[in-house]
Amino acid sequence: VTEPDAELSGFATLDHQRPQRQGMPEVVYGDGKTVVQVVAICEQLRAAHAGFLVTRTTPDQHAALRDRFPSLVWNALGRVASLADVAPPSIAGPVLVVTAGTSDLPVAEEAAATLAAFGHTVERLTDVGVAGIHRLLSASDAWQRAAVLIVVAGMEGALPSVVGGLVRRPVIAVPTSVGYGASFGGVAALLAMLNSCAAGVTVVNIDNGFGAAVAAHRILAP
Amino acid sequence: VTEPDAELSGFATLDHQRPQRQGMPEVVYGDGKTVVQVVAICEQLRAAHAGFLVTRTTPDQHAALRDRFPSLVWNALGRVASLADVAPPSIAGPVLVVTAGTSDLPVAEEAAATLAAFGHTVERLTDVGVAGIHRLLSASDAWQRAAVLIVVAGMEGALPSVVGGLVRRPVIAVPTSVGYGASFGGVAALLAMLNSCAAGVTVVNIDNGFGAAVAAHRILAP
Amino acid sequence: VTEPDAELSGFATLDHQRPQRQGMPEVVYGDGKTVVQVVAICEQLRAAHAGFLVTRTTPDQHAALRDRFPSLVWNALGRVASLADVAPPSIAGPVLVVTAGTSDLPVAEEAAATLAAFGHTVERLTDVGVAGIHRLLSASDAWQRAAVLIVVAGMEGALPSVVGGLVRRPVIAVPTSVGYGASFGGVAALLAMLNSCAAGVTVVNIDNGFGAAVAAHRILAP
Amino acid sequence: VTEPDAELSGFATLDHQRPQRQGMPEVVYGDGKTVVQVVAICEQLRAAHAGFLVTRTTPDQHAALRDRFPSLVWNALGRVASLADVAPPSIAGPVLVVTAGTSDLPVAEEAAATLAAFGHTVERLTDVGVAGIHRLLSASDAWQRAAVLIVVAGMEGALPSVVGGLVRRPVIAVPTSVGYGASFGGVAALLAMLNSCAAGVTVVNIDNGFGAAVAAHRILAP
Amino acid sequence: VTEPDAELSGFATLDHQRPQRQGMPEVVYGDGKTVVQVVAICEQLRAAHAGFLVTRTTPDQHAALRDRFPSLVWNALGRVASLADVAPPSIAGPVLVVTAGTSDLPVAEEAAATLAAFGHTVERLTDVGVAGIHRLLSASDAWQRAAVLIVVAGMEGALPSVVGGLVRRPVIAVPTSVGYGASFGGVAALLAMLNSCAAGVTVVNIDNGFGAAVAAHRILAP
Amino acid sequence: VTEPDAELSGFATLDHQRPQRQGMPEVVYGDGKTVVQVVAICEQLRAAHAGFLVTRTTPDQHAALRDRFPSLVWNALGRVASLADVAPPSIAGPVLVVTAGTSDLPVAEEAAATLAAFGHTVERLTDVGVAGIHRLLSASDAWQRAAVLIVVAGMEGALPSVVGGLVRRPVIAVPTSVGYGASFGGVAALLAMLNSCAAGVTVVNIDNGFGAAVAAHRILAP
Amino acid sequence: VTEPDAELSGFATLDHQRPQRQGMPEVVYGDGKTVVQVVAICEQLRAAHAGFLVTRTTPDQHAALRDRFPSLVWNALGRVASLADVAPPSIAGPVLVVTAGTSDLPVAEEAAATLAAFGHTVERLTDVGVAGIHRLLSASDAWQRAAVLIVVAGMEGALPSVVGGLVRRPVIAVPTSVGYGASFGGVAALLAMLNSCAAGVTVVNIDNGFGAAVAAHRILAP
Amino acid sequence: VTEPDAELSGFATLDHQRPQRQGMPEVVYGDGKTVVQVVAICEQLRAAHAGFLVTRTTPDQHAALRDRFPSLVWNALGRVASLADVAPPSIAGPVLVVTAGTSDLPVAEEAAATLAAFGHTVERLTDVGVAGIHRLLSASDAWQRAAVLIVVAGMEGALPSVVGGLVRRPVIAVPTSVGYGASFGGVAALLAMLNSCAAGVTVVNIDNGFGAAVAAHRILAP
Repeated sequence: VTEPDAELSGFATLDHQRPQRQGMPEVVYGDGKTVVQVVAICEQLRAAHAGFLVTRTTPDQHAALRDRFPSLVWNALGRVASLADVAPPSIAGPVLVVTAGTSDLPVAEEAAATLAAFGHTVERLTDVGVAGIHRLLSASDAWQRAAVLIVVAGMEGALPSVVGGLVRRPVIAVPTSVGYGASFGGVAALLAMLNSCAAGVTVVNIDNGFGAAVAAHRILAP
Repeated sequence: VTEPDAELSGFATLDHQRPQRQGMPEVVYGDGKTVVQVVAICEQLRAAHAGFLVTRTTPDQHAALRDRFPSLVWNALGRVASLADVAPPSIAGPVLVVTAGTSDLPVAEEAAATLAAFGHTVERLTDVGVAGIHRLLSASDAWQRAAVLIVVAGMEGALPSVVGGLVRRPVIAVPTSVGYGASFGGVAALLAMLNSCAAGVTVVNIDNGFGAAVAAHRILAP
Repeated sequence: VTEPDAELSGFATLDHQRPQRQGMPEVVYGDGKTVVQVVAICEQLRAAHAGFLVTRTTPDQHAALRDRFPSLVWNALGRVASLADVAPPSIAGPVLVVTAGTSDLPVAEEAAATLAAFGHTVERLTDVGVAGIHRLLSASDAWQRAAVLIVVAGMEGALPSVVGGLVRRPVIAVPTSVGYGASFGGVAALLAMLNSCAAGVTVVNIDNGFGAAVAAHRILAP
Repeated sequence: VTEPDAELSGFATLDHQRPQRQGMPEVVYGDGKTVVQVVAICEQLRAAHAGFLVTRTTPDQHAALRDRFPSLVWNALGRVASLADVAPPSIAGPVLVVTAGTSDLPVAEEAAATLAAFGHTVERLTDVGVAGIHRLLSASDAWQRAAVLIVVAGMEGALPSVVGGLVRRPVIAVPTSVGYGASFGGVAALLAMLNSCAAGVTVVNIDNGFGAAVAAHRILAP
Repeated sequence: VTEPDAELSGFATLDHQRPQRQGMPEVVYGDGKTVVQVVAICEQLRAAHAGFLVTRTTPDQHAALRDRFPSLVWNALGRVASLADVAPPSIAGPVLVVTAGTSDLPVAEEAAATLAAFGHTVERLTDVGVAGIHRLLSASDAWQRAAVLIVVAGMEGALPSVVGGLVRRPVIAVPTSVGYGASFGGVAALLAMLNSCAAGVTVVNIDNGFGAAVAAHRILAP
Repeated sequence: VTEPDAELSGFATLDHQRPQRQGMPEVVYGDGKTVVQVVAICEQLRAAHAGFLVTRTTPDQHAALRDRFPSLVWNALGRVASLADVAPPSIAGPVLVVTAGTSDLPVAEEAAATLAAFGHTVERLTDVGVAGIHRLLSASDAWQRAAVLIVVAGMEGALPSVVGGLVRRPVIAVPTSVGYGASFGGVAALLAMLNSCAAGVTVVNIDNGFGAAVAAHRILAP
Repeated sequence: VTEPDAELSGFATLDHQRPQRQGMPEVVYGDGKTVVQVVAICEQLRAAHAGFLVTRTTPDQHAALRDRFPSLVWNALGRVASLADVAPPSIAGPVLVVTAGTSDLPVAEEAAATLAAFGHTVERLTDVGVAGIHRLLSASDAWQRAAVLIVVAGMEGALPSVVGGLVRRPVIAVPTSVGYGASFGGVAALLAMLNSCAAGVTVVNIDNGFGAAVAAHRILAP
Repeated sequence: VTEPDAELSGFATLDHQRPQRQGMPEVVYGDGKTVVQVVAICEQLRAAHAGFLVTRTTPDQHAALRDRFPSLVWNALGRVASLADVAPPSIAGPVLVVTAGTSDLPVAEEAAATLAAFGHTVERLTDVGVAGIHRLLSASDAWQRAAVLIVVAGMEGALPSVVGGLVRRPVIAVPTSVGYGASFGGVAALLAMLNSCAAGVTVVNIDNGFGAAVAAHRILAP
C-alpha cells in the first residue's frame, strides 16, 4: 500500500497575489526541487501570463527549462534562470554590485541577474577587496552614481564598511561563504557586516544574493 | 611619572567631512565616554555650526548636556539627545517604527529619535507581536502608507517576516536583546531575521536602533 | 582471527515491555542500520504479534520490507514504513500538521505517517508560511477544530508563534533544517521556537517529525 | 524639550481578547517593568473583572501588589503573584512537577504557581536527580497517576529522559540555568532534553517554568 | 622538479620509549594514512619485537594487514586491528563497557578491542539507555563487579550520570556522535557528561573509545 | 496569602545511602544556598554521626559553620569547609595536584581539600605552566611517585598533555576559567584537554576541582 | 583549624631565568591579584635588581605602587605601570600603533606602554577606522616608516586588512571587545582578522595589547 | 539567451603593483578555480616577467601547470606549485617549521614551499608533539638558531606555547584542522594558540600555512 505520489499534486500553493502585493514576479528556489517540479511551476506561472525567476537552478533544471522555454535568460555564474520581459524597465538606478574577490562572483551574479529580471539597470565593480584599497578608490565614478549598492564579500567581510563610509546611498551587505578555517562558512563575514562601523549598512543572509536584489528592488520600485 | 591625561587632548579626530559626505550630522556614541568628553565633543561641533546627536546617553551625560544646551531634545526611552533643527524636514516618508513588545521600545525609540533629528516623519505601531496577529493586521492603514518600515523585535524575531510579506516597501529588521535563556541576548531574533522567508528584508545589529534609522535615512535622503 | 559478526546476534535488546508501558508499537530508526538488521527486527516483532514502524527508512530498506511484508504501508515523502492495523482508531483528534513551505513536507509527513500508524486522524495544512499570512488566516476551519497541532517550519521558524496565538489547544513546534547560511541546519528555527512569544508552545529536536507525533500521541492516548 | 513620559501612557496594548481566545488570564512578565507599571496593569485588569498572574515578580513589585491587593496569592520561590479565584477548578489532572535538584525549585515553583492559578491540581516530586535513581523509582505512585508531567532539571538535564521512559502521559521538559562551566547557563540541559532518547518528550525555553505550565494547561483545558 | 616523495621516508618519528614509559604498545591511528604507511609502521614495530594496535582502520588497511600478519586480531565493529599477545593478562578488572544504544557499538568496541589488546578482561552491557531504565537496573551483577566502567552514549548522554550514581568505581564517559539535529555531532552528549550530577565522572573526546580504554589502562596497570 | 516558607522544610532530600554506596561523605554545594540552609544540613548530617564537606562556601557560610563547629577544617583558597576525621587515612596515593599558574590555585585547592577530607595524601606542584617547561621537568620526583595526578590549567590548557606524556598513572585534567577574550570562560582550556595528544587523559567540567578529587577517590578507594 | 594563609607564601614561583631567556623583564598581570601580592612581587624583583612591568593594574594597585616606587612610570589609559630604565633603547623601529576608534585606545596604550618599557620607539595613529578611509590614507608618512605595525580594532575589525595591504612590514592585529550585540565581546573582530584577505597578518587574543607588544619585541629585539 | 562565459574574460583583476608594494610574487589560490583559469593567470604573470606561486593546487591544476611550465617546482604534501627563481636568496633566517604530528605536515609544507619560493632558508622539525616533550627539547640546536619559528599543530594546539617559552625570536602559530570530535575542525587548536601562556605568540587562520609563511617573510624581508 503506497500513498499517492506527492511530486506533482498540490505540493505548492502558489501565492498569485504576491506579484501584485509586492511588485515582483513569483520566484522559484530551484535547489532541492525535482526537474519535473520546477518545470511544472514555471509552466503554471506562464499559463497565468506571469514571468518567473528561478534561483539556485541546478544544471538539470536549467537544461529542462532551456528546452521548454527557448527565450529563457540564463546567468551561468549566478545560476539564475528567468523569462525575458519579466518587468518593465526601471527609471531609478543604477544598482552597483561590488565584489571583494572572484570567488564572490556567483553570489553577486545571483543578485545582478535578479535585478535585471526585475527591470533594473545593473553595474558591476569586481575584485576590489580591501587589501588593495586603491582599486576601490579609483572607481569613484561607479560608486558615486549608484542609487543603491550591493556589496558582496567573504573572508573578513570588510568591504561594506569601506563602501558605506564613501557613499550616501543605501548599502546592502551580502556575506559569502568564501573562505576556510575560522571563516565558518561565512559567519566571520556576516558578523563583520553586522558590526560595521559605517552606520546604516544593512545585511542579508550568507550567500543570499537574491535577497539583496529584492531589498534593492523594494527601495527602487515606485 | 605620569603621562599626560588623555581625556581631553586629541582623543577623537572628528570627521568634519562626514556630514557633507553622508548628509547627516556627526553622531556621538555616549556609552563608555566620560561626561566631560561628551560635552566637549558637542561644544566643538556646536562651535563649528553643526548639530549633533548623542546615542546611548547616560543619565549623567544627559544632565550635563541639558544644562549646557537648554534647547536639547531628549528622548528618554531611546536615550537619544540631539540639538533641535539638526536637519531640514524631509518630504519623503513617513517611516513606520513597528515593535513586537513593550520591552522593545527603547531600541525603537532610539531609531525614532534619530529619524526625527534627521528631519523625517516618524509613525509608531507598538505591541503588535505575532502571537496576537490581529493587532498588526488591523493596523493596515499605518503599514500601507509607510515609505520605509523599521521592525523591532526580540524573542523569536518573527515580526519582520510577517510585515515583509504584507508590504512592498523596504523593511529594516532590528533584533533586540529582549528575552532570556535560549534567546542568547538577541541571537535568536537576529538569526530569525536573517532567515526571513519574506524576501528582501534586511537586518542590522542587535539593539541597533540607530543603525536602522541611518539605513532608512540613506533610502529617503535625496 | 576475526571476532563473530555482530550484525545479527544480539545487537539490539528489544524492549518488549515498552508497547504496553507506553501504548505504542516498537519503533525502528532505519538510518544507519543494514537492510538485514531492519528486516530481522521487523520479523522478530511480527513473530511476537506486534506491529512495527520504521522511520528514516532508506530506499533499500523500503524495497526489502515491501517484498517481505506485502501489506506494508509506505509514506514516501516521510520515509516511514509501517504495518497496517498497528493501533486501534483513536476517538480523539484530529491532529493538524501545519507546514510553512514545501521543503518542510518530509518532516511533516514523518509526523503524519507516524500518527496514522498509531490510529490518529491527521489533517494537513501546507505551504502557509508567515510571509503570506492570509493563507493561514483563511484556513481557520482547520486550526479551530484540531485537538493538537504540529507546526513544522524551517528558516526563521515563525509559524508556531502565530499559530500558538490563534488556538487554545497544544502546539508542538518542529524546526526543520530547511534553509541555508545562518540557518545553521535548523538552529535558527529551533531558537525561534524556543523563544516563541506565544506561551505554551513546546518544541522537539530539529527534523524530528516522529518525536512530535509521539508527543501528540501522549496527549491524545487514553 | 522632553517628550512625554512613557511610563504610564499607552506603553502596553492589553490583548483583552486573549483570555477568551486561549482560556487563561492575562499574564504580566514582571522583570524589567517598574513597580508603577505592574500595579497599573493589574488594576486595569481588575477593573475589567479579570484575574491576573505576575511572573518574575521583583521584591518591590511584590510588596506593592501585596499592599494594593490584600488577597494576593504569593509563591516566594517561584516569584509568582496572582489573584485568587483566577480560574475554576480543573477536573483533569493532576500535574506532577518533578525536579532534579533543590536549585531547580524556583523554576518548578513558577510552573506550579501558574498551574494553581489556572485551577489545576499540582503535585510535586523534588530532589530526584538521576544520580540517585532509586529516589525516582520509589515514587511510582506519584508519576503513575499524573495526567501531565513537568520535569525540571539543570546540569546534564537527564531526568526527562528517564521519566519519559517510565510514563505514557505527556512529559514537558524544562531546562534550568543551574550549573556552571560547560553548562553554559542551561544550554547543556536544553540540548540533552532536545535529544532525549525517550520519544515524545517536548521542551520549553531555559528556566521557562511559566511556559511549561501553559503547555500543560493547553493539554488539560477542556 | 619534484621533491622526494614523503610517503615512506621519515614521515613518523616512532617514540620507541613510549611503551616502556607508559606501559602500552605503540598505537597507530589508521584514518588518513595510506595503506603503505600503515603496513610499513607495523612491520617496523614487529621488527623491533613489539606488538601494535591500529585504530580507525580503513577496510583497505585491514585487508593489507590481514594478508601481511595472518595472526592479526580484528574487531570489525570497532575497526581495531592488533597483533595477538600484545600484553600479558591483567589480574585487575574486569572493565565493563556499557552502551546506551546499538548505534554506540562501534565506539564501544573500539574501547573493548583496545582493552583486550592491552591484556584486560572486558565485559559488555549493551542497549541499556535511560529511557528503559529497568534494563540497566536489572544488570546489577555486571556493574557491581566491574573495576572500571566505560559508559558510551550519544543523543542526550544521560547514561554515565545514572551509572555514576550506582557504583563506587571509576566511570569514564564517552560521548558519541550518534544523533541528529541539535545533537551537533556529539556536543549535546559531551556537555551532558561534563555536567553530570554524579560526582567524579570523567570524560573523553567525542567518539574516543580508544582514549577511554587507555584511561582505564592507566587506572588498572600495575 | 503566602505559601509556607521553603527555606527549612524539606527542601533537600538527603541521600543517606550515598556515603555507604559510594564510600564518601555527603557533600554540600554552598553557593546559592542560604547560611541557614547550609548550617541546618550540616547539623542534620552531624546528628546522623556523619562528617560533611561544604564546597564553594561563601564567607558568611564559613563564618557560621566555624562558629557552630569549632573543629571545622577550612581551606580558604579552595573555599572548602569540612569536619575533621571525615574518612580514614588512605594507604594508596599520593595524589599530585599540579597547577599551571597562580590563578588556578583556587580550583586546585578545592580538589586538594576534598581529597584531604576523604583521607588521601595530597602533594602539590604549582606554577609549572608549559611556557617555562623546565619547572615541570625538574620536578620529576613529584610526578613519578604520584598514584593519580590532577592537572589544573586555564588559558590554553596545555599542561595535562605534557604531564600525560610523562607518566603512566591516571591524569585527570581540570580546565579553569582563568584567561580572557577567546578563552571564553574556560572553553579554550576544556577543548584543549578533550583533544589532548596524550592518550588516556580524562577531563572534568570547568573549575570542577571537587569533581576531579572524587574521580581520584573512585580510583584510589578500596 | 585553618590552613596557613596563601597570600604571601610561595604563591608564585618567579621564573628568574625568563628575562635572560627571552630578553624582557618579568611581567606581572595585575588583575585578580591583591595589592599586597603585586607590591610584594615588584619588591622581590627590585631586590633582584630587575625592572618590572605590571599590566591590567587596578587603581588600588597603582596607588600602592606609586607610593612604594616614586619613579614608577604610569600609563593611565593602558593601565600599565613600569619602573623606568627597564630596557636599553632599541635602535630598530619605530613601532606604529594604529587604532580604529577612540574606544580601542586602552588596548592600544597597553601595547604602547609595554613597548616603551622594553625600550622601543612608539608612534601612534588613532581614530582611523575604515568608514573614513581618507584618514588612514593621508597618514602614509606614518605607516611607511614603521618597522612593525600593531593595528587595534573592535567592531568589524577591518582595519588590519587595509593596513596589511598597504605595507610590507609585519602587521600584528589586535581585536578589541569594543562593540555590542553580534560583536560578541570581540569575537567578530577576531574572526575578521583571522580571515584577513591581506596575507601575512597575524593575530593575538582579544584585548591583548600586551601580547602584541611582546610579539613586536620578538621581531625587533636583536 | 545565455550571457557570455565568465571563465576567461576579466574574472580577475591582477594587482600588478602588489609584488613591488609587498616584496613578494603574485599568489594564486588554486582551490575553486578551473584548470583553465589557473593556467591562464600563470601565463599572464609569466608574460609580465613575474614568477608565481599557486597554493591549494588541485591534482589537475598541477598536471596542467607541469606540462605548461617544465621548470615548475612542486611540493606534493603542501600542494604548492611555483616557478623557480621567484625571489633572490635571503640572507636572514633560517625559518624553522615545527610540526606536532605527521598529519600536520601538509600545512607545514605549504608554509615551507612558500618560504622557499620567496628565497628563504627553511629547516624542519617534525613530529615533536608535547606528549613526548623530550623530542622537542633534544632538538635545541634547531630552535636556537632559527630567526623565525612557524609552529604547526592540530588537536590541543599546545606546541606553540612550549616553543614560545623556549625561544626569544618570533613564533607564528598555525592551528590545523587535524583531530576529531571536539576539535571542531581546528577551533580547539586555534583557541589554545590565541590563549597561549607564552607571551608574544601570534596566530594565523586554521590550516593557513601560506599566511604563516608570508608573516615570516614580512619579518625577514629587508
